[in-house]
Amino acid sequence: MEGVRKRILVLGGGFGGLAFVKAFDCPGVEITLIDKENHHLFQPLLYQVATAGLAAPDIAEPLRTLFSKRKEVQVLMDEVRDIDLEKSLVRTPHQSLSYDYLVIALGGRTNYFGKDDWEKHASGLKTLADAHRIRNEVLGAFEMAENLAEDNAERRRLMSAVVIGGGPTGVEMAGALAELTHRYFRRDFRRINPKQARVILVDVADRVLPMYSESLSASAKRQLEGLGVQVMTGKKVEDIQARKVVLEDFEIEAENIIWTAGVSANPVVEKLDTPKAKGGRLKVEPDCSLPGYANVFAIGDIAALEDAKGKQVPGVAPAAIQMAKHAAKLIQAEITRGRSQGEAAERESFVYRDKGQMATIGRSRAVASAMGREFSGFVAWFAWLAIHLVTLVGMRNRLSVFMKWIYKYVQNKPGARIIWRAAPGRVEVERTSDRLVL
Amino acid sequence: MEGVRKRILVLGGGFGGLAFVKAFDCPGVEITLIDKENHHLFQPLLYQVATAGLAAPDIAEPLRTLFSKRKEVQVLMDEVRDIDLEKSLVRTPHQSLSYDYLVIALGGRTNYFGKDDWEKHASGLKTLADAHRIRNEVLGAFEMAENLAEDNAERRRLMSAVVIGGGPTGVEMAGALAELTHRYFRRDFRRINPKQARVILVDVADRVLPMYSESLSASAKRQLEGLGVQVMTGKKVEDIQARKVVLEDFEIEAENIIWTAGVSANPVVEKLDTPKAKGGRLKVEPDCSLPGYANVFAIGDIAALEDAKGKQVPGVAPAAIQMAKHAAKLIQAEITRGRSQGEAAERESFVYRDKGQMATIGRSRAVASAMGREFSGFVAWFAWLAIHLVTLVGMRNRLSVFMKWIYKYVQNKPGARIIWRAAPGRVEVERTSDRLVL
Repeated sequence: MEGVRKRILVLGGGFGGLAFVKAFDCPGVEITLIDKENHHLFQPLLYQVATAGLAAPDIAEPLRTLFSKRKEVQVLMDEVRDIDLEKSLVRTPHQSLSYDYLVIALGGRTNYFGKDDWEKHASGLKTLADAHRIRNEVLGAFEMAENLAEDNAERRRLMSAVVIGGGPTGVEMAGALAELTHRYFRRDFRRINPKQARVILVDVADRVLPMYSESLSASAKRQLEGLGVQVMTGKKVEDIQARKVVLEDFEIEAENIIWTAGVSANPVVEKLDTPKAKGGRLKVEPDCSLPGYANVFAIGDIAALEDAKGKQVPGVAPAAIQMAKHAAKLIQAEITRGRSQGEAAERESFVYRDKGQMATIGRSRAVASAMGREFSGFVAWFAWLAIHLVTLVGMRNRLSVFMKWIYKYVQNKPGARIIWRAAPGRVEVERTSDRLVL
Repeated sequence: MEGVRKRILVLGGGFGGLAFVKAFDCPGVEITLIDKENHHLFQPLLYQVATAGLAAPDIAEPLRTLFSKRKEVQVLMDEVRDIDLEKSLVRTPHQSLSYDYLVIALGGRTNYFGKDDWEKHASGLKTLADAHRIRNEVLGAFEMAENLAEDNAERRRLMSAVVIGGGPTGVEMAGALAELTHRYFRRDFRRINPKQARVILVDVADRVLPMYSESLSASAKRQLEGLGVQVMTGKKVEDIQARKVVLEDFEIEAENIIWTAGVSANPVVEKLDTPKAKGGRLKVEPDCSLPGYANVFAIGDIAALEDAKGKQVPGVAPAAIQMAKHAAKLIQAEITRGRSQGEAAERESFVYRDKGQMATIGRSRAVASAMGREFSGFVAWFAWLAIHLVTLVGMRNRLSVFMKWIYKYVQNKPGARIIWRAAPGRVEVERTSDRLVL
């Protein structure tokens, strides 16, 4: 390779960013991967951290370690503050980085649809901090109920949880909460009866998992109800207050309120002067590049695209991975052929291959659709376990999760049922501007 | 059993409290175990959580689950605020509990010897929150050094850690930090060289591990130095400031400062009007009961006792467990014989059986003394691993830790190398007084 080395900047180490770096196999090119965390997070299992099944490190893998053997890959834990498309520069508090190609894979965050004050009453489920807070609060509520068992109203509220949002995350969270409280808590309390715990799933749509067929939605609802979840569909959330969810016709008092009803694009891209879709996502050309910036790609949850077949590409991990591989192939071809940067119109369009979808509900309970067929119950559940185990990043994580699942299945004891309050970081006075405040 | 059931209150679910409940096998007696956490913490492995080897749930086991099958045992997660020896009452924010026998096993906390402002600059290592903070800060410092690699002074400070205290915890922490940075970080950075990381162990005594023989102390020092730790003995810490340790003759600039130099009794017992020893510990009679209160026992780190052979009982887990079993035997004998509460003078005295001691330093590096012999290096290390694995509470924890140790040994990758900031609890306004603020 002659002349100056090409430089690719990848923003975000989620499914998209990780898959891009893995797929990009062209040693003469410098790749820099920036993430504000030091790890890739396997979000599909985050609800199991929140419901005390897994520990945080089980579903996270340090980005540095993943690429330690690829000398051309540099990992930086830093926060993207500004993307300057005109000057081809990305700025962080610590550095300015130029690029020949930019891959924006910054994902999304919990969206309360403009009701930002709901956030303090209803936790999202997008980060390890979210999962840890939910775990502490759910476990803590039952400990408190045992202490205050005499007060009927208080006990009932402490033993109630509301999950808002009937998509896969909401369904998985509600099922896991019901199983945790009804099944795993069964023998552990003396003053309260965990069987009386309430888990309520609320959605404005008329069925859960609306992206699935009606029959699978109905099956998911039956399976949830079999675990003791109250499914309330067609209910709009009017307000969320401290320990209270207000619906149109009544209110639910609940100690724990979890919000899984909305996701919007990472706000870092708000300032970009390119077309946006719903939720602030970046509209991209059929090749996944930004309109007018053929050397800038947006992939994964932050991108909005109808693919060449007219299908809206969904915000799921397989789509992010496929987009990443597509972008890697295009960029690699242009660089290795020594061509200057291509034009979006000349490039191959991205086509999303939908391999099916699945959601787990509890032990031997799940729904799945794949290869034109539908599955529910044990078969779907077993397939879910196998696929998540195989796709989990990091061999040690796979071993650890496998062992904990078997143990939980056999012993009926979730593996991380501990409450612990993290200490705040040290008091920072003089240097907050130039260091990471932990 | 006739009449009113006897009630035993156990304060604290550490090694002492846990061993007492396990040893007390007398079904007609009600036992209530109170701890401000919901779990037993296996403190000997806490330094491995702090140095990214293990996850928090690996070394913690929910107290409820441990005793779920013993219907006479009630576990409460609540905070002991007041012990009223005259009225035989223990008060918490949520309840007042009376007792026939009381077992105080509340342990200790980090002691800065009156320099409380040092706490914000130098983390202790007694809780999961401590370990989590140290892990975040050590990993974060190297990420920051990679970002600021151009600034030599800053990089040097970020890559420096000082451990204060040359006892077992300090030695284990310093060794593990050196191994983490020099060995496990080896291939992962591009701008900094982790081999330049400094770990400095400071103690005012003239040798590390002063409770061991001089030859074992010397061996420990050699093994630490072999890992790259700078051992500074005979150095008094004059002051600790933000990122700076001030010794008599010079200062050390270091991003991470860890304090393992002092432990004092849980401050809940400060108000008790009974004799105290150094560090606020409760002086006990030869049978482990409080002077003047034959129905109240103090065991473990919170108790101060010269045993019947004139030996000061050390603040280690085996001593706490032995005291617990002694107290359980005495109380059980009095209750089952139907006798009224005994007198301290009539009871069997506690005798501490020292089975040896050991400290690990790193891979294949450790020191141990047992059965009148001394060991160091691989043999001591292997024995350390085996004993800690066997005594770790919870079968799933044993499996998980075993797997992670093997993986770390073979793959050179510590298992929990992730930085994550815990979110603060929800904003509490109206109910802080009557609920656990998480």
